[in-house]
Amino acid sequence: VIGADKVAEIVRVNGVEDATISYLDRGLHFGDGLFETIACRQGAPRFLPLHLERLALGCARLRFPAPDLQALGAEIQMLAQGVDRAIIKAILTRGVAVARGYGISGTEKATHITIRYPWPSEDPSAMHQGVQVGTLTLRLSESPLLAGLKHCNRLEQILARAECSERSLVEGILFSTSGKLVSGTMSNLFLVHGSAIRTPLLDRCGVTGVMRRVVMREAARAGIPVQECDLSEADLRNADELFLTNARIGIWPVRSLDERPMTPGPMTRHLQEVMTPLLEDSRVERA
Amino acid sequence: VIGADKVAEIVRVNGVEDATISYLDRGLHFGDGLFETIACRQGAPRFLPLHLERLALGCARLRFPAPDLQALGAEIQMLAQGVDRAIIKAILTRGVAVARGYGISGTEKATHITIRYPWPSEDPSAMHQGVQVGTLTLRLSESPLLAGLKHCNRLEQILARAECSERSLVEGILFSTSGKLVSGTMSNLFLVHGSAIRTPLLDRCGVTGVMRRVVMREAARAGIPVQECDLSEADLRNADELFLTNARIGIWPVRSLDERPMTPGPMTRHLQEVMTPLLEDSRVERA
Repeated sequence: VIGADKVAEIVRVNGVEDATISYLDRGLHFGDGLFETIACRQGAPRFLPLHLERLALGCARLRFPAPDLQALGAEIQMLAQGVDRAIIKAILTRGVAVARGYGISGTEKATHITIRYPWPSEDPSAMHQGVQVGTLTLRLSESPLLAGLKHCNRLEQILARAECSERSLVEGILFSTSGKLVSGTMSNLFLVHGSAIRTPLLDRCGVTGVMRRVVMREAARAGIPVQECDLSEADLRNADELFLTNARIGIWPVRSLDERPMTPGPMTRHLQEVMTPLLEDSRVERA
Repeated sequence: VIGADKVAEIVRVNGVEDATISYLDRGLHFGDGLFETIACRQGAPRFLPLHLERLALGCARLRFPAPDLQALGAEIQMLAQGVDRAIIKAILTRGVAVARGYGISGTEKATHITIRYPWPSEDPSAMHQGVQVGTLTLRLSESPLLAGLKHCNRLEQILARAECSERSLVEGILFSTSGKLVSGTMSNLFLVHGSAIRTPLLDRCGVTGVMRRVVMREAARAGIPVQECDLSEADLRNADELFLTNARIGIWPVRSLDERPMTPGPMTRHLQEVMTPLLEDSRVERA
């Protein structure tokens, strides 16, 4: 596989090492799949039950053949073993097409792919000093049936990342076609307003990130009011602090929005402290 | 390949027969690809230049590495040779990922896949008596950057086809989230109002089908006024006649809309007659 050695360390396709993908796989033809990007530390996948739970939700919503998520979880755990840091991507497609066209026959057998990637090199300043973000011109389309899912229809995110690259932004903030605040291109977004945190309701677009969920849970446990709601550009501009979350990065403060400096503030710092033990050692995770 | 023998006759991946797909292909991970479904008759692909033109437009819009479309066209022509009827699907993806994540490096090399399928068995009544269609509850998301393209992000069409199956509809009519009439799940839609034909403007969603384009061109040549515009549910309900187009079927009259009977009328019949020589023999196609 061209380039594969530079990118991925191990792959299993339907449990078989180094297998290839059928040219009839519906994942390839239609993006008819779901995925999870799982951060692994000290030999264990972080927040694995939450990743599998989102995958199960996606399977139900997209009417996938019921996958054996327990076996998939065991495979992910096995791939994570003995490695200090790694990223495991699990892809689940509806499987090889049994006929031409979009239609589902109901007899498809899901394809599951697990790929272990090295943990990328990181700029430690992102976590400490924060990152520069900008609002993007691209607007995300609204599709309630697909909202929240980490599905494999990602052309919008690809074009949004291209806009970030052109503008030298670490992350870009996205609005929906109806003007609602949604997320970053590869992260969820939180706004701090006074002593409360708010994050966009993702009922029309966006991905309900696992780290977003953990941060909401931990904030609530720490007595911080958490609101999941429709948010506008004005809400974004009026926030006291902004921070980004995803499965790998944990929490990144925002240090500038469209070139306007912002100071990573006390709420972001507090939540980073609350999260640190959960991120450093998978065994600390509570049920 | 499981099931492949039942579905496809021949495949080439980057020109190589029976090759498989890399598990790192961006088409698989993100639906980061484009496709064309080309009807072949008497050993030749129908309207090949128009298919390649749409593919070129898609490549530019999605910032794909410039593909050799002339070579791809030649491969499609070769696959069509010696076969009376076939469907050739050409898929072009951005290629194997050179890094993890959505970002484009600019060094990707496109993957091109050509698959020849047998021409499906057809119910001749569809073309003559027409088909039963219904308006679907699923609404298509609006994404101007992707509108018109035959890209590989097709989860909405898959769910829409599932709705058709459940309701035993040959085809389902789709509206966008903002209530605009768009198309069928696998066809474009034309409305006949008096002596003119109208078809939805596809600037926010939908696929600008090759057959749609040919019908618009041939109608204009025959002196029939053709309008491409925003259309509503009321426009749909008030149409004198409705017909569907796609690359394989040509023109199908609609004989009922949401169980209200409609008569395939004179305009639909006239356009079917105009189109017949173009559909029966690829050599008749004008430049």
